[in-house]
Amino acid sequence: MKKIQLYTITVILCLFSIATHAQINWDTKIQDKLPDILKKHRELVSIPNVASDEENMMKNVDWVTTEFEKLNFNVSILKTSTLPVFLAEKEVDPKAKTILFYLHLDGQAVNPAKWNQKDPFRPVLKEQDAEGNWQIINWSRIKTHINPDWRVFGRAAADDKAPIIMMLSALELLQKQQQKLSYNIKIILDLQEETRSEGFLSTLETYKKRYAADYLIIMDGPAHPTNKPTLTFGCRGVATCNISIYGAKLPQHSGHYGNYAPNPVFRMSHLLASMKDDTGKVVIDNFYDGIELDAETQKLLAQVPDDNEVIRTGLGIAKADNVGKNYQESLQYPSLNVRHIETSWKGPGLKTIIPEIITAYIDVRLVRETDGATQLEKIKKHIEAQGYLVLDRDPTDAERLKHPKIAKLTMNPGINAFRTDINSLIGTTLRETLENEFDEKPILIRTMGGTVPITPAIQVLNIPAIIVPMVNMDNNQHNPNENIRIGNISQGIKMCLAILSMKL
Amino acid sequence: MKKIQLYTITVILCLFSIATHAQINWDTKIQDKLPDILKKHRELVSIPNVASDEENMMKNVDWVTTEFEKLNFNVSILKTSTLPVFLAEKEVDPKAKTILFYLHLDGQAVNPAKWNQKDPFRPVLKEQDAEGNWQIINWSRIKTHINPDWRVFGRAAADDKAPIIMMLSALELLQKQQQKLSYNIKIILDLQEETRSEGFLSTLETYKKRYAADYLIIMDGPAHPTNKPTLTFGCRGVATCNISIYGAKLPQHSGHYGNYAPNPVFRMSHLLASMKDDTGKVVIDNFYDGIELDAETQKLLAQVPDDNEVIRTGLGIAKADNVGKNYQESLQYPSLNVRHIETSWKGPGLKTIIPEIITAYIDVRLVRETDGATQLEKIKKHIEAQGYLVLDRDPTDAERLKHPKIAKLTMNPGINAFRTDINSLIGTTLRETLENEFDEKPILIRTMGGTVPITPAIQVLNIPAIIVPMVNMDNNQHNPNENIRIGNISQGIKMCLAILSMKL
Repeated sequence: MKKIQLYTITVILCLFSIATHAQINWDTKIQDKLPDILKKHRELVSIPNVASDEENMMKNVDWVTTEFEKLNFNVSILKTSTLPVFLAEKEVDPKAKTILFYLHLDGQAVNPAKWNQKDPFRPVLKEQDAEGNWQIINWSRIKTHINPDWRVFGRAAADDKAPIIMMLSALELLQKQQQKLSYNIKIILDLQEETRSEGFLSTLETYKKRYAADYLIIMDGPAHPTNKPTLTFGCRGVATCNISIYGAKLPQHSGHYGNYAPNPVFRMSHLLASMKDDTGKVVIDNFYDGIELDAETQKLLAQVPDDNEVIRTGLGIAKADNVGKNYQESLQYPSLNVRHIETSWKGPGLKTIIPEIITAYIDVRLVRETDGATQLEKIKKHIEAQGYLVLDRDPTDAERLKHPKIAKLTMNPGINAFRTDINSLIGTTLRETLENEFDEKPILIRTMGGTVPITPAIQVLNIPAIIVPMVNMDNNQHNPNENIRIGNISQGIKMCLAILSMKL
Repeated sequence: MKKIQLYTITVILCLFSIATHAQINWDTKIQDKLPDILKKHRELVSIPNVASDEENMMKNVDWVTTEFEKLNFNVSILKTSTLPVFLAEKEVDPKAKTILFYLHLDGQAVNPAKWNQKDPFRPVLKEQDAEGNWQIINWSRIKTHINPDWRVFGRAAADDKAPIIMMLSALELLQKQQQKLSYNIKIILDLQEETRSEGFLSTLETYKKRYAADYLIIMDGPAHPTNKPTLTFGCRGVATCNISIYGAKLPQHSGHYGNYAPNPVFRMSHLLASMKDDTGKVVIDNFYDGIELDAETQKLLAQVPDDNEVIRTGLGIAKADNVGKNYQESLQYPSLNVRHIETSWKGPGLKTIIPEIITAYIDVRLVRETDGATQLEKIKKHIEAQGYLVLDRDPTDAERLKHPKIAKLTMNPGINAFRTDINSLIGTTLRETLENEFDEKPILIRTMGGTVPITPAIQVLNIPAIIVPMVNMDNNQHNPNENIRIGNISQGIKMCLAILSMKL
């Protein structure tokens, strides 16, 4: 009786499993392959990839060319006036949809002296000791057992060579399983993302047809700090401006002219204080125009499992700026940031002078509702409303004698924001794909705070874009001791497999 | 008939002249001696006098020692822990009053590359051409005719070797005329005035008796721009403080945390804007306490023949700060000046970060009614009143998490102001002496804007002090191409003669 019962249960469970998990269970396959995958990752990270080092960049290109060709991709090295753009294509059906994946092959410049390892381009495997310090362990240990919390340290280990390896590994696993794609694929590897993507962005028109696709998936940046599968539907843009305010024509002795020659530092203080209230909210007219976080949006933002207390204590502050109710809400608004301010004179001893000029270097993060040129125009109007003559150059002597308040404003509208609707076809498909694969809803980021340099491509190519960030948040991106958590590599491969298996 | 008439007129004129000018008419005597005086000035200016160059400083000391000994002065070289203090004394009567004259022998450091002559210590004679440029002329020209508008260019030509030469020349002329002094003289030549007078100030107690006197006359600084004989009865003091304001513990990415991590630049702007109104008036509670410019004082200040329009256009401003009704009134109040302001990070490219700290470097010019410690305390109270926790050190992590607004304030009460009553005995005597000599009232400066570094000596020695400034205002003091107008040398000698001849 017991035997029959057990058998029945087993059969039922098996049938249930087949019914609900029609897709392949990839976990075991990824784990089996992981030593090889890590070896490949180590190989790629060992090739230096600072964009200014063209010779090594081309070695990286050779390496990925070999890999993509093994997977029967058609590889093109698209010429630009600077470094080329790597493009790998696989067409399954001319009538099918096409997804363009964007990743980058270059890494940030390195200062080896600041790294806790000999060479940032000789990746090391590390585990954390009881004190929380990262200790190098022997690479041979990956042959027997791999701890997902181990990390590989090296430049570009995470940003952005980890996603390249995840994608390659997923494609290889799919090929082995003879799984076919339901859509055409184009994969761009940018060789200059860390230095503003000059080659790629300057050839958007030239290669418009080559880059043409129905959707764009950007595989870059860190996942939510919880390391759960994350989808990011937009990012803020950034505009910049510099404001200079003038005092007397030359620096003046603070004894001879203190109380007489106006001090531009106080002028600037009045001006900046008029732009933001004491709680950090911008009070320039219409600055937040058009932004409304309705109930659904607020719910979407609240779904992100941020621990605002952890963010606050991490920053080391008593109170955040009063823009949104929580961290995610604050990112839905344009910001106004003075990144640096300086008077002209700074020498040893700090001579007691009244400065003749002060300059504030400002950046404005943008959201979809507020484009750069418009936001900067609001700032200009605000300065004028404070009684300033606003110029785009230094004042003439005659202007100085006529206008008590003169400001120079130079503006760069920069890069606008993008945001794709989470309920768009690609949004919905990606959400459902990841939910099916991981048995829980992915974390949905409506807008991330930073700016992806290739946002202009989204606008020129006119393709809905979604960012799929897969590396651990604490990867020391752009800094010494950059690293990737091995658990994130496995999970990223699984995300790639799910995305490559989805039906469009 | 004509002869008799001419003779009669001549006799009358001579008698008239004797009656009204009982004192010697020095002008001719000064002009006769001027080539020799300029030769001596050239000799002294040729000896380099940067205080850090001890060897040359001692050559300067040797030179003045010889000169003062020729005039029967008793010379002492008073030892200090750094350069010595030069003291020349002449006692006419132990029961007579004593005047201590203070001058300095050192000059500002030089950057020869910035001078329009080969060597700042090889003085050149110049005249202005039709375009207003100064052209070198041959020294031999002083033998035949001297234009009072010619100038001698060289380091310390004005500041402060010109007054030393004026004083020596006046003493020599007096000696030749066998004129006796009515008071005892002590003459201090400071060897470190340009570097804060360490030797002199650190030995005030040690040499208190040697420096003891009834009055102190400081011969330094420029006369009123009109070049008319000027008496200055006080100068402002100076206190300093640094204010730092904190944001997050580390600089933050302006994309990730813009609108969330408070920006200390805006905090500082609100704070500084709360200290001064938009017209430049300090609005910190009680900042101007105790200062009342009564009708007599206002009249005294209005007597200075300033051309406020010339000052304004010289500064290149449309409107002066609204502290006093005119330039002289503005100097009767303490000032609040930010001489430099900076955020921590300043590198190439101006990374888009939210700064973690901003520091304002402040100086407060003081007047007799407002001492340094009290003014700084008012600033501290004001910062606290804006809701800040005010520390004298960086905050701890716990303080950062508890207090939304934290400021670090470091204070240096500095040097207090001095002001001698213009109706004091020495004030009245000097005024009348100069008026008699020049047949017009001298310009009376109640308080000059800058700070004389030896003000603490006035307080420690407790002697009423008056500044007798004699060089031209446009002498490029402390800068390249320092110069002295020859007309100012002649007039300065005459002023010294009048002062040395006065009865006390």
